[in-house]
Amino acid sequence: WRSRGKLQIFQYQVLKWVLALFVGVVVGLVGFFSNIAVENIAGFKLLLTGDLMLENRYLAAFVLYIGCNAMLAAAAAALCAYIAPAAAGSGIPEVKAYLNGVDAHSILAPSTLLVKILGSVLGVSAGFVLGKEGPMVHTGACVASLLGQGGSRKYGLTWNWIRYFKNDLDRRDLITCGAAAGVAAAFRAPVGGVLFALEEVTSWWRSALLWRTFSTTAVVTMVLHALITYCRGGHCGLFGKGGLIMFDLGSRQVTYTVTDLAAVVLLGVLGGLLGALFNFLVDRVLRVYSLVNEKGACYKIVLTVTISVITSCCTFGLPWLTTCTPCPPELARTKCPTIGRSGNFKNFQCPPGHYNALASLFFNTNDDAIRNLFSAGYDFREFGVSTLLIFFTTVYTLGLLTYGVAVPSGLFIPVILAGASFGRLVGTLLGSVSGLDPGLFALLGAASFLGGTMRMTVSVCVILLELTNDLLLLPLIMLVLLIAKTVADCFNKGVYEQIVRMKGLPYLEVHAEPCTRSLVAGDVVSGPLVTFSSVERVGAVVETLRSTGHNGFPVIEDPPFAPAPELCGLVLRSHLLVLLQGRIFTRARVKTGAAEVFRTLAPFDFAKAGSGKGLKVEDLQLTEEEMDMYVDLHPITNRSPYTVVENMSLAKAATLFRGLGLRHMCVVPRTQGRPPVVGILTRHDFMPQYIRGLYPNVLPR
Amino acid sequence: WRSRGKLQIFQYQVLKWVLALFVGVVVGLVGFFSNIAVENIAGFKLLLTGDLMLENRYLAAFVLYIGCNAMLAAAAAALCAYIAPAAAGSGIPEVKAYLNGVDAHSILAPSTLLVKILGSVLGVSAGFVLGKEGPMVHTGACVASLLGQGGSRKYGLTWNWIRYFKNDLDRRDLITCGAAAGVAAAFRAPVGGVLFALEEVTSWWRSALLWRTFSTTAVVTMVLHALITYCRGGHCGLFGKGGLIMFDLGSRQVTYTVTDLAAVVLLGVLGGLLGALFNFLVDRVLRVYSLVNEKGACYKIVLTVTISVITSCCTFGLPWLTTCTPCPPELARTKCPTIGRSGNFKNFQCPPGHYNALASLFFNTNDDAIRNLFSAGYDFREFGVSTLLIFFTTVYTLGLLTYGVAVPSGLFIPVILAGASFGRLVGTLLGSVSGLDPGLFALLGAASFLGGTMRMTVSVCVILLELTNDLLLLPLIMLVLLIAKTVADCFNKGVYEQIVRMKGLPYLEVHAEPCTRSLVAGDVVSGPLVTFSSVERVGAVVETLRSTGHNGFPVIEDPPFAPAPELCGLVLRSHLLVLLQGRIFTRARVKTGAAEVFRTLAPFDFAKAGSGKGLKVEDLQLTEEEMDMYVDLHPITNRSPYTVVENMSLAKAATLFRGLGLRHMCVVPRTQGRPPVVGILTRHDFMPQYIRGLYPNVLPR
Repeated sequence: WRSRGKLQIFQYQVLKWVLALFVGVVVGLVGFFSNIAVENIAGFKLLLTGDLMLENRYLAAFVLYIGCNAMLAAAAAALCAYIAPAAAGSGIPEVKAYLNGVDAHSILAPSTLLVKILGSVLGVSAGFVLGKEGPMVHTGACVASLLGQGGSRKYGLTWNWIRYFKNDLDRRDLITCGAAAGVAAAFRAPVGGVLFALEEVTSWWRSALLWRTFSTTAVVTMVLHALITYCRGGHCGLFGKGGLIMFDLGSRQVTYTVTDLAAVVLLGVLGGLLGALFNFLVDRVLRVYSLVNEKGACYKIVLTVTISVITSCCTFGLPWLTTCTPCPPELARTKCPTIGRSGNFKNFQCPPGHYNALASLFFNTNDDAIRNLFSAGYDFREFGVSTLLIFFTTVYTLGLLTYGVAVPSGLFIPVILAGASFGRLVGTLLGSVSGLDPGLFALLGAASFLGGTMRMTVSVCVILLELTNDLLLLPLIMLVLLIAKTVADCFNKGVYEQIVRMKGLPYLEVHAEPCTRSLVAGDVVSGPLVTFSSVERVGAVVETLRSTGHNGFPVIEDPPFAPAPELCGLVLRSHLLVLLQGRIFTRARVKTGAAEVFRTLAPFDFAKAGSGKGLKVEDLQLTEEEMDMYVDLHPITNRSPYTVVENMSLAKAATLFRGLGLRHMCVVPRTQGRPPVVGILTRHDFMPQYIRGLYPNVLPR
Repeated sequence: WRSRGKLQIFQYQVLKWVLALFVGVVVGLVGFFSNIAVENIAGFKLLLTGDLMLENRYLAAFVLYIGCNAMLAAAAAALCAYIAPAAAGSGIPEVKAYLNGVDAHSILAPSTLLVKILGSVLGVSAGFVLGKEGPMVHTGACVASLLGQGGSRKYGLTWNWIRYFKNDLDRRDLITCGAAAGVAAAFRAPVGGVLFALEEVTSWWRSALLWRTFSTTAVVTMVLHALITYCRGGHCGLFGKGGLIMFDLGSRQVTYTVTDLAAVVLLGVLGGLLGALFNFLVDRVLRVYSLVNEKGACYKIVLTVTISVITSCCTFGLPWLTTCTPCPPELARTKCPTIGRSGNFKNFQCPPGHYNALASLFFNTNDDAIRNLFSAGYDFREFGVSTLLIFFTTVYTLGLLTYGVAVPSGLFIPVILAGASFGRLVGTLLGSVSGLDPGLFALLGAASFLGGTMRMTVSVCVILLELTNDLLLLPLIMLVLLIAKTVADCFNKGVYEQIVRMKGLPYLEVHAEPCTRSLVAGDVVSGPLVTFSSVERVGAVVETLRSTGHNGFPVIEDPPFAPAPELCGLVLRSHLLVLLQGRIFTRARVKTGAAEVFRTLAPFDFAKAGSGKGLKVEDLQLTEEEMDMYVDLHPITNRSPYTVVENMSLAKAATLFRGLGLRHMCVVPRTQGRPPVVGILTRHDFMPQYIRGLYPNVLPR
């Protein structure tokens, strides 16, 4: 059924492109509107609180602030806990696992999409130390998956053309585009989005996909550009000041000496260490939280509200610790303090003409806080050492505590916040030694933390460049990223890989595990092998499908059809179910041939259904008489499955399995005169836990 | 011999990184010095000519100009023709083929490297319409290959640690780094270099490689940055004005209307058409030239000098056609005309206070011409329509004529020149309709031509961004690239793929050819299969090695060692030669075992030697007595070669072969009771020409 007419190929090509571009449009719109929502909700909340503060009604302001935050947090947690638990967390590890071939349930369901968008808006508005970037990636993937399925059949929105996309390859491609579009929408960084998808998310990459992903992110950028231009006119409430470049720093003259380079290297090393520590602690915190979260939805909400109250107390309470700073004279009257709008130099509790440095960071949206940290400080040191130290410690801790709660939460923003404050701290401390700007140090600090936690290099570098629009910073950012990643890699793995592993998703690594080197493929084949004869009794098929959970079965060509038993191929559970549903049975044990089958069933009936929508064996309604008839499996058997010989090194088999993205692989015997297939290898047989369970004494890790 | 100690793994890791960084340093230095050399030679030539022009000695100036160019061209051609013919042309197709697994002779030899650098400097200085970018990629790859081999054994420069790198994988990785470093050095575009390597050059890509490539290009950038900063002080002769960003355009306010977008789309379509035409014509020109070049080295030199004279006549003669333009008043005295230095507004034959627009483009180095075309033209239209039209036509034609001559010649610069002039022409013509700057149109035109000829999108986009340092242009560049590539793809393939195909290199495409769908693996296995017994007579082995050119032989386990003949594995010619050289023979037909072999030979003796340095069968000096003894092939047999069953679809076999980067694949029989191996598939068996030769009636292309 692979032979298609020219028209069909054309339809397919057009549709592939239309879908990719359409994903871009939708993700661009979603990203834009969630941005607007966040800016308006959070801005309104901060404005109300600020007004009360101006009237010196501090307690009322505090109650309002903490109440708003807790309510928003509770709403987000309730959505996550009751409607779509899969929407909690970053979503990047799940997307990564999906693209590796793990079809985990509900990762990309429509309900997850809805909760992810709403929950992310609510969570960010609630003032948590978390970002909407990770959730945007997940959102992009969900949108792509939904569009690729032609809408949800549950809600009656399907479309016939979409049938071309009911296979793993096209679906994965589209979801890769979606993930890239998510990054592009979150950071307004099209090239960064493509590189992120390439470096972090996908497991298989083709050159053609590079191009398609790129055009998707281009569409995202254009949609954002158009909408932001529209918003500049003031049509979008409190939103509207941001351009396409989020933190446009203006060009600094970057000339650096050897001392500066030494400072940058130091920053990289420290960033790597703190990043590795962050990963370690996140892992611990997640383990503790998962004990709480397992107890039920209510516990999830309580945990979330608790963290929200702690966050509110910190952000509202800590600014009281610092003394007020008088505004620099050249900025007074126009820029300092900012009252009634977002910006630098928050007034908080200070008398007119003064600002509270810590409030400028805490009592703001996260985006504004980052902008403040990145801002140049040539002539005037806005933030003191103590301010930065308090902010860094608080954000680092809150970032750790927040990630595991049941709201959609990205890690980018906490890491950038902590890194930027840390970098600015180092820059301020080294002010006498290094001539670099503290704002530049903040940027480099953010880079070092990103490198230390996420272990991405190229994509982070490009994203930071696109965020700041200054290519001259490139060599410094690269240097700091490389150092931070190298240092952190000595201690543990990247945070996303850690989470994938903690969730127990069977993720196939690129490199085969060391323990597979000394084993052969035959060693890990286990359990009784279930095979079908090429023309099999219906009852036997149904019985087997009921009693096992396997998804692939080898088909053996038995004596009437071949001189000796030989491997005919591999048949999939889903195809078997469709064939049985079609009731193309014969009384005698004879071949019916493909023509017979395809008179009743169209080739597209065998296409892969969306998640959770395939036929189930319980759906079959077969009579006793039918159960005794025979069904010819030839037409639906994959006649050339990939096979390995049983004495093939397991590492090599794993390379083949991973390299070609297989789901089943037949193991055939080496010597003759034995059954023609020894067993089947699936993803789980390559998992190191499983192998170490079988052979505890095999080479240690 | 894969089990290594911890120390060895550490040595290997350190060395891998040191080498990658060292490649960066060397390529950075080479790129910088070839830049200096070009600027100084070409600058000196132009200065001398210009001085004569100022004295109104036009004929003398012409003779000097044409003579210098012809001499430089002849020198470059002589180097190429006599020393290293492989150095002619761009080199990108060859590197691409090498990384696909084609071990063509002398592509990466030290002599090629030397000629590539010198020839490229001479060729660019000679005023040809060609660039040093393609050659820089080849140079980078050669440097990496040379360093990876630990210098050349021929010249006695080897190093023991390097033995870890004597295998295909590490060598390919390093050469990928080298290619990326070449792009980074040529365009001073580190991220662009990585993406170029990813999109255009490599065939297999791993995430780890992304990081290593990136650090190599980071080193290149830092080396360049340091050297350029040094040169700013005026220590480098005529060179020294360029910064790290080649064509720093300054920020333009880019706001565009729907009409502007329409103009951009038009530009993309036209660029795609002209790009496809360029590819078509280049193919024809190369075919004609190859007839000339085949006749001998002298013909090559004559052809090169002819083209050089034509180029000189055009660049010197055509500016006389235009009338002189008075300098814009605001620039007079300081910037217009430029005399005695490089820059815009060349004086040429014009009276003082006037400039010759065409000479500003022709009578300049290519880099300066591009800078002039990209320069903003808000208030003053420097180049008229006729100027741009003449320049575009000339450059397009000369670019076509120049590529095939026997000098190292890149395609980037001709394409950018033609595209930029074309874009600026369109921009000037549409000046009344579109409000975009003609300089911006020039940039977009260059993008459209690059997209139309090379069919790269992401890397070209990023390279252009890094060349111009303006991220706001991103959406427009993306749009124009996508349109140009889509349009051009309707007509033919990318120019590098065309050249690979024309040179007859057995390049494996990602997608299996359509004609392989209807065939099975057994269909293309041909010729008598040569196998060895697991313990074979020495004479038989030597005889076989002498009489066939095969590189891999299946080893069969025969009755004394196994109950029935079965496939033991695959043995490589190079390993056989090493084993025979080691003379570990026995009189009786018994297994000697691995311990015996490795007492005499170290595992690293079997490592893959550099190109053209392995043992040859003629080197073996075996006595008659030894020829009658037996050799045990078990220790050197690859015991788990990848195999396919003979009735596996050829397309699937091709996917496996390409996906895992194999060189040999065993085809095993489906039914029992036959010899345990049917044949061996190699790269050539998957070539469409070969398959169509066997089965002329199989599905047409």
